[in-house]
Amino acid sequence: MSEANTSVVALSGGVGGAKLALGLSQQLDPADLTVVCNTGDDFEHLGVTICPDLDTVLYTLADWNNKELGWGQAEESWQFLEALRRLGGEDWFSLGDRDMATHIVRTELLEAGQSLSSVIAHLATKMGITHRVLPMSDEPVRTQVLTQSGERLMFQHYFVRDRCEPAVTGFEFAGIENARPSSGFLEALQRAGSIIVCPSNPFVSVDPILRLPGVEQAIRAAEVPVIVVSNIVGGQALKGPAAKMMTELEIPMTALGVAQHYAGQYPGLFSGFVLDSEDEALQEAVEALGLPTIVTNTVMLTLHDKTELARECLAFADSLKLP
Amino acid sequence: MSEANTSVVALSGGVGGAKLALGLSQQLDPADLTVVCNTGDDFEHLGVTICPDLDTVLYTLADWNNKELGWGQAEESWQFLEALRRLGGEDWFSLGDRDMATHIVRTELLEAGQSLSSVIAHLATKMGITHRVLPMSDEPVRTQVLTQSGERLMFQHYFVRDRCEPAVTGFEFAGIENARPSSGFLEALQRAGSIIVCPSNPFVSVDPILRLPGVEQAIRAAEVPVIVVSNIVGGQALKGPAAKMMTELEIPMTALGVAQHYAGQYPGLFSGFVLDSEDEALQEAVEALGLPTIVTNTVMLTLHDKTELARECLAFADSLKLP
Repeated sequence: MSEANTSVVALSGGVGGAKLALGLSQQLDPADLTVVCNTGDDFEHLGVTICPDLDTVLYTLADWNNKELGWGQAEESWQFLEALRRLGGEDWFSLGDRDMATHIVRTELLEAGQSLSSVIAHLATKMGITHRVLPMSDEPVRTQVLTQSGERLMFQHYFVRDRCEPAVTGFEFAGIENARPSSGFLEALQRAGSIIVCPSNPFVSVDPILRLPGVEQAIRAAEVPVIVVSNIVGGQALKGPAAKMMTELEIPMTALGVAQHYAGQYPGLFSGFVLDSEDEALQEAVEALGLPTIVTNTVMLTLHDKTELARECLAFADSLKLP
Repeated sequence: MSEANTSVVALSGGVGGAKLALGLSQQLDPADLTVVCNTGDDFEHLGVTICPDLDTVLYTLADWNNKELGWGQAEESWQFLEALRRLGGEDWFSLGDRDMATHIVRTELLEAGQSLSSVIAHLATKMGITHRVLPMSDEPVRTQVLTQSGERLMFQHYFVRDRCEPAVTGFEFAGIENARPSSGFLEALQRAGSIIVCPSNPFVSVDPILRLPGVEQAIRAAEVPVIVVSNIVGGQALKGPAAKMMTELEIPMTALGVAQHYAGQYPGLFSGFVLDSEDEALQEAVEALGLPTIVTNTVMLTLHDKTELARECLAFADSLKLP
C-alpha cells in the first residue's frame, strides 16, 4: 500500500450501484477502477444464463441502459417475449429482444468453457467499456429467499415473478461455500487504494459479495479505507425491496439500520459511511457505531449527481487513509 | 388398406413443400393429413436447436409465415440479430425476434427430455394448427454437403452462410444409420391411403426422409399410390439451390432429371409424377420411366393455386388406387 495508490474497487448490485459506478468511471482512469458485481441474482431461465446486476452495470457504463424503464437496454423491443407468450413459454421475466442477445452470447461462451469473468470482459469490450467490470465469482452463487410461509424462493422468482410480495425471514446463498472470489477481484483488492460499497441492497447485493470465502479477509488485509454509501434515504429504498425486507427482518428501516447491519455483521471492516443530506439527523448515531460519516446528496438523478457523489466518496476515502 | 381410406401422408421440405401442405390442409380433415418434415437441415446454433423445414411448415399452416420474405414469421423484427452483431456474435443466420421464441421453447423442451415429435405437437397446438405435423425422426440427422474443394459443410453453412456458392459433389446424412423414423411417421404410413411427395429438393429434403432406415420398406408395405410433385419447373428450381445442385451433380436440370433421380434411386417406389404445364413436353419421357404422369399448374402463388394443386394430387392418387 502506498499513499499514491488511487486504485478503487467498487462493490455493486444493480441499478443504484451502477449509478455510482458510472460516476466513479467519470472520475477515474480505466486502470484505477474495478467494479465487482453481485452474481447472487443470476439465474438460468429458458436455457440462458442471466446476470441482472452485471448487465445493469455493463449497460450503464456503456450508456446502453434504458433511462425510461430504469432497467434493461435502451430502445428495447419485446417481440420475442410476445411470441414466447403465444407459444406458452414462461413469460414472467421480461426478456427484451436486444437483451436476449447478451444472454445468448454469454451462455454460448460459458458453455464453450469460458469463465464468467472472461465472458463479461468480452461483453464489456464489445460495448466499448474501458473500466474493468468483474463478477464477484466465476462459480455460481444463487441467492435464495426464505419466506414466512416456509417456502424457499429463487431470488428472481421472489423479486420479479412474485413482485417481492412474500414476507422475508432471511437469505441463503446457495453454492457460496464452494465459490471462490474471481481472481480479478482478489487481485484488485490487493492493489486497492480504497474500497467503496455502492448504494446497493445490503442483504441480497452486498452480503453475497462480502460473504464469499476469502473476501472479508482480503479486504481486511488490504488495510485501506472501506466506505459504504447508504442505500436507504429518508427511510425509503431508492430502488428495490430493501425497505420492505428491513421491516420484515425487524431492522430499523433507516440508514442507521443499514449502518447497524454492516457494523454488526462485519465488525471493524468499514472505515466510513455516507449518509444522504435528508438523513443528517442520523449522523451522530452512525458515528457512534465507530463509523466516521459524511453527509451529502446521494440521490443520483443526473450524471452530475453521479460524478459528484463519486468525487465525494473518493475524497472521503482519501481523508481516511493512514498518514 | 381399404378404398375408403382417405388418409394422406405428405413428405415435405421447406417453402415449396409447405405450400402444398397448406393446400392439402384446405382439402383434408385434420384426421386425414400427416405432414412429415425433413430434419436434415436442422442445426444447433447459438445454443438453440433450429428446425427450418418444420418451422416453415408450422408457420405456413398457422398462417404465421412471412409472405414478403418467403421465410420466417410475419411481422418479424431483427433487434436481437442487430444486438448480437454488436456483441460480436455469429450473425450469418437471420434469427428474427419472434422466430427466436420458437427456438427457445423448442430447445428448452428438448433439454427437458421431450421428443422432437412431442415438441412440434406442442408448438403446433399453440399455433392453432389442427393437422398433424411430424419430424421425420426424433433423432438428429444432419445433412452434410460434400464440395468440390473437398470441404464438408454443415447444410446451413452451405445454404445460408456460404449462399450455396460451393460446388456440390454429394451429400451425407450424418446420424441417419442410427436414426429411426418417428413413431407417428411409421403409424401414419400404416394408415395411409396415399403418399404425396411435395415439390421439395430431392437431394436434401426428400432423400433424407426416404433413406431413414425402414421408411422405404414401410412405404412399399403400405401398397398405396405414392406420387411426387416436381420441384423443377421449366428447368428452374422454384426455390432454393436444387437447379444449381443438379448442374453440379451432372443431372439434367429438368423435371425429367428429377423423375430420373426418384425412379433410379427408388426403383418401383413411385406410382405417379406431377409435371408443371410448362413441362408438358416431358410427359412422355417421364412416363417412359414407368411413372404415370399428370400435367397441371404446380406454381403455387395464391392460396387457390395451393388448394387446386392439392385437389389434383389427391384425385391423381385416387385414380392410381387398386380397384
